[in-house]
Amino acid sequence: MKTTNPMLLNLLLAFTLLMSRVKPDPDPLQDYCISPPPPPSDHQHIFLNGILCKDPTQATVSDFTTTALSKPGNTRVNPFMINVTLTTITNLPGINTMGLTMARIDFDASGVVPPHVHPRASEVTVCLDGVLLVGFVDTSGRVFTQELHPGETFVFPKGLVHFLYNMDSVSSALAVSGLNSQNPGTQFVSLVNFDSKIVEEVLERVYQINGRDVAKIRKILGE
Amino acid sequence: MKTTNPMLLNLLLAFTLLMSRVKPDPDPLQDYCISPPPPPSDHQHIFLNGILCKDPTQATVSDFTTTALSKPGNTRVNPFMINVTLTTITNLPGINTMGLTMARIDFDASGVVPPHVHPRASEVTVCLDGVLLVGFVDTSGRVFTQELHPGETFVFPKGLVHFLYNMDSVSSALAVSGLNSQNPGTQFVSLVNFDSKIVEEVLERVYQINGRDVAKIRKILGE
Amino acid sequence: MKTTNPMLLNLLLAFTLLMSRVKPDPDPLQDYCISPPPPPSDHQHIFLNGILCKDPTQATVSDFTTTALSKPGNTRVNPFMINVTLTTITNLPGINTMGLTMARIDFDASGVVPPHVHPRASEVTVCLDGVLLVGFVDTSGRVFTQELHPGETFVFPKGLVHFLYNMDSVSSALAVSGLNSQNPGTQFVSLVNFDSKIVEEVLERVYQINGRDVAKIRKILGE
Amino acid sequence: MKTTNPMLLNLLLAFTLLMSRVKPDPDPLQDYCISPPPPPSDHQHIFLNGILCKDPTQATVSDFTTTALSKPGNTRVNPFMINVTLTTITNLPGINTMGLTMARIDFDASGVVPPHVHPRASEVTVCLDGVLLVGFVDTSGRVFTQELHPGETFVFPKGLVHFLYNMDSVSSALAVSGLNSQNPGTQFVSLVNFDSKIVEEVLERVYQINGRDVAKIRKILGE
Amino acid sequence: MKTTNPMLLNLLLAFTLLMSRVKPDPDPLQDYCISPPPPPSDHQHIFLNGILCKDPTQATVSDFTTTALSKPGNTRVNPFMINVTLTTITNLPGINTMGLTMARIDFDASGVVPPHVHPRASEVTVCLDGVLLVGFVDTSGRVFTQELHPGETFVFPKGLVHFLYNMDSVSSALAVSGLNSQNPGTQFVSLVNFDSKIVEEVLERVYQINGRDVAKIRKILGE
Amino acid sequence: MKTTNPMLLNLLLAFTLLMSRVKPDPDPLQDYCISPPPPPSDHQHIFLNGILCKDPTQATVSDFTTTALSKPGNTRVNPFMINVTLTTITNLPGINTMGLTMARIDFDASGVVPPHVHPRASEVTVCLDGVLLVGFVDTSGRVFTQELHPGETFVFPKGLVHFLYNMDSVSSALAVSGLNSQNPGTQFVSLVNFDSKIVEEVLERVYQINGRDVAKIRKILGE
Repeated sequence: MKTTNPMLLNLLLAFTLLMSRVKPDPDPLQDYCISPPPPPSDHQHIFLNGILCKDPTQATVSDFTTTALSKPGNTRVNPFMINVTLTTITNLPGINTMGLTMARIDFDASGVVPPHVHPRASEVTVCLDGVLLVGFVDTSGRVFTQELHPGETFVFPKGLVHFLYNMDSVSSALAVSGLNSQNPGTQFVSLVNFDSKIVEEVLERVYQINGRDVAKIRKILGE
Repeated sequence: MKTTNPMLLNLLLAFTLLMSRVKPDPDPLQDYCISPPPPPSDHQHIFLNGILCKDPTQATVSDFTTTALSKPGNTRVNPFMINVTLTTITNLPGINTMGLTMARIDFDASGVVPPHVHPRASEVTVCLDGVLLVGFVDTSGRVFTQELHPGETFVFPKGLVHFLYNMDSVSSALAVSGLNSQNPGTQFVSLVNFDSKIVEEVLERVYQINGRDVAKIRKILGE
Repeated sequence: MKTTNPMLLNLLLAFTLLMSRVKPDPDPLQDYCISPPPPPSDHQHIFLNGILCKDPTQATVSDFTTTALSKPGNTRVNPFMINVTLTTITNLPGINTMGLTMARIDFDASGVVPPHVHPRASEVTVCLDGVLLVGFVDTSGRVFTQELHPGETFVFPKGLVHFLYNMDSVSSALAVSGLNSQNPGTQFVSLVNFDSKIVEEVLERVYQINGRDVAKIRKILGE
Repeated sequence: MKTTNPMLLNLLLAFTLLMSRVKPDPDPLQDYCISPPPPPSDHQHIFLNGILCKDPTQATVSDFTTTALSKPGNTRVNPFMINVTLTTITNLPGINTMGLTMARIDFDASGVVPPHVHPRASEVTVCLDGVLLVGFVDTSGRVFTQELHPGETFVFPKGLVHFLYNMDSVSSALAVSGLNSQNPGTQFVSLVNFDSKIVEEVLERVYQINGRDVAKIRKILGE
Repeated sequence: MKTTNPMLLNLLLAFTLLMSRVKPDPDPLQDYCISPPPPPSDHQHIFLNGILCKDPTQATVSDFTTTALSKPGNTRVNPFMINVTLTTITNLPGINTMGLTMARIDFDASGVVPPHVHPRASEVTVCLDGVLLVGFVDTSGRVFTQELHPGETFVFPKGLVHFLYNMDSVSSALAVSGLNSQNPGTQFVSLVNFDSKIVEEVLERVYQINGRDVAKIRKILGE
Repeated sequence: MKTTNPMLLNLLLAFTLLMSRVKPDPDPLQDYCISPPPPPSDHQHIFLNGILCKDPTQATVSDFTTTALSKPGNTRVNPFMINVTLTTITNLPGINTMGLTMARIDFDASGVVPPHVHPRASEVTVCLDGVLLVGFVDTSGRVFTQELHPGETFVFPKGLVHFLYNMDSVSSALAVSGLNSQNPGTQFVSLVNFDSKIVEEVLERVYQINGRDVAKIRKILGE
């Protein structure tokens, strides 16, 4: 019997291990494509623009259900005093290829979801508790803001900068959102300017200020 | 000055009046494409696979917000004792081209959303109040059912037959769903068989029964 | 030389073997993406929302041709006296990523394709032999039915309940269909109600009958 | 009452009349979007990348059926001795937005469908009568050819040059094709070279011949 | 002859005039769909998520060609000392439905395209003259920056914040970009924070500063 | 410990090694999906309609930049005296899933890109140097041709036959193109007729000439 070349196996492994859990957004191409469990070790990820499915005959009802949104998220772990919990292919494997995400947003008193964009999704938010100030900026620079009371609903158009703010400095608030992608992505645009992320000389040039001014602003911002 | 031929105008009108409000599902092609208000008369509809937009400079924040989901729906208007309220381009014009719908589902005690399919959407349901029995059937005939308590979430894969049932015969229940289409469509499959919709001889043939049996079943079903 | 950890290999295998032949529907992304032959053992399936391709340099003309539709299907293997033969990535590997399926439908005398939906495709049927009664139900409940004679053609809109029936109790019939997906999927909605698939209490509630009535109907249906 | 400015009306008309019958290929966005009848005059066309729908409440079963493919096409109207009849939004208005076309191809003895591409569709052909020689060329220049006998089926991948030829110089042949677009488009590539369509100096340069040689070839080709 | 109701005409006009030139991004559904010329008056716009086409028989070669990118753009009309010229359906009507845009970017000495996102497109930039510092921030906050010399090319992934900067304080620079949408859209995220666009109390909350600090920063920024 | 069956490993390898670098065109499903480096041996290719991604944490700025378009291509390696250099997932791994290609086209004096189609992309060409004669043929047979001077831009609609020709017999020319696919594909239609690629009897039939005439034409064409 021809034996396997161990070097070849190592190469194959090395190559295969480069790949990992991914989160695509095409339509389902069969009834469902349940995301398989992650491999046991950190090093055995498979990265793919298109997702692996669990063997469909092994599907169980637990693949289609989650308690992830049942409990309030911890709002004390970030300065913004909010917590966003999303359905993902990890906590709800059956969401894979279904083209949407549900989110639970817990706001502590004065909690805020800072200005951000979802590069791959529109969002509709229903306020469940409290009073929220929400808004977005369109590409012409117009700002649309609205107070939301329980049951009231707001649309954030795809890819535009938006924010949500619990105006009440005493009570918490709660909202649920739908987003039309299983992996909407989030980029906080308020944070890509005066912190270290954008090259300093570009910042100086854009705002036509000097390095000292950048430093002053960073100091005011506590960075 | 050349005058307008009134006959030509009439033809144009006749043609134009055939068209009406529509509910497409492509991606937005500009920041937003707010659905315009319906024309004043019933006869001035425009039908189009692709939607008209309101002049973007006339967009107001009220186009992006709705109170439609704020109030419990009336569960006494149908035998199933449920009420489903959807965001639509009529109550939330800014949802147009955003590719998702949010729904509020009110269940009276023992209320049921009968087996149905959405030909154009996946659905994720979050139970907000009460205890629901939910489930779907896949194309191989397997049934997946689950009890949902408040905060628990369930995925109904695209195009598959599913149902939601308030198991409690005393208390009402409440759920919110996201669907990844602005016009999911609904076809109640439990009702296309033994009511008058399917030609009788096809029913007899499919179930290999005779006309008397069809009549018996219809009688049992109270039709 | 570093040797391969056999446990790691086993894990990799275990993971890889979870995956299997799939049937996606995106556009081709190269000239063709011929479905590779299934692996030799039942346990080596790869499941993926997106398909593996055979090495393109190994493509042969036999990948693009099939005799699957050449022979009448056996109509005696089911109570409906019909047989539907589809092109698939197994009998026609080159169909992979091409976005359509051709089907041959053989009807014995009085054969019927019971009410069903294709969650992922529209269908156009051409009657080749015999006389068929075909029809569909739209989401508003309207039924459209039509007799088809040889050469006559009918459209079944995407995702709607439809059926085909050979009205002739003596002669067989033949039709060919095109469907705009390489994996249309089929869900027989006539069979998801009074057989065991839908939870009994949901059925009772939907039809507002009691368990005895469900039993009666099931008895009439011979289940 | 404010009167209508007739000039404005004329402008509106002039603008509207520029538009006409179109044949898009998106998914249906409602149950069906039946193509409306053409306006009475030749000048009242509306051109749109996206199609108008007939008022859905006016849908009739005749919108979903056609006899266009019932009769053999006339193969004597072109030098190639073939006739291709397609379902279109004119002969089958309900095909609009359904994403596929069915075609009947009649071949006289020695009839040929010359090398051509469909810029917007894959094609699967089933031979119904006779013996066909079919083939395509991939982008690497490989040619795949196959003889098809009745019932045998062949895939022409999207956008690639292909042809169909009735090898029998005595008998006619018949095939039916499905194409995954409601408007596949056809460009006969055999005819864009030495006929007058390509600028002569480009031809001379491509084939590195002189004008006399182009003239010679055109003469041989009888052009 | 029945006369046309002038009120009805006015309503129709009022409705029609709400609509205007739009810039969608679907695939072409025929060979080309040339954007029609704008109507003569400002008030006769048609807004549509999907575009009108010029009568195809009226297509001329000038619809497919433009000199818009031939001349350097004026870099002195904005504080950033750059000018971006895009192909659009106005200067290149044949680009309509073709799914891409070409852009010419002129940089004066020290010119900068400030951090921005294109909600609907990826971008590939080729440096033609000068030396550019380009970069983007991914959703995890990593910054990727690169110097580009003539002929060097850079990819800005879809929807991510990016910038381009002419590092040379003496010489101008020139780049050409391709974007995979006919209407990419642009949102300058550097400008949505400390100018008046975002509600002041949200800014204070996000940066955890007070109104005086916001004022200070705005003063530094010269706003 | 259970040992791994070496035969199984060989089978797995054999299967895995069939797969290779691919070039899909869907939207990005995460920030970026950088194409992984090819495996070390020729035999370890993975073929997939959908692409593997490099581990995103291993992304470096060099994945997003290329010098491939910096240098003039060698125009002396083909009889057409042109050279087309494309961005690909090999020279620019970050282009993977971004949905566009940039191309540099070098023309020697009298260089010509012969009539061809891109089955998966529209193209916009900007002339940078020299004078080009460009053109395309639509499906109705109309030819559109245009001279392009530096800075002038031309659209080639998706899937239509087109060509580019340096009219100057002394000077070279240069153009840059954007194409809206990461793998446009190219099929030279001028070369699929009278060379050996199309079966001779089909050619004879199409052009209604005999084998001698085909031979004559081939001789004139120097084949």
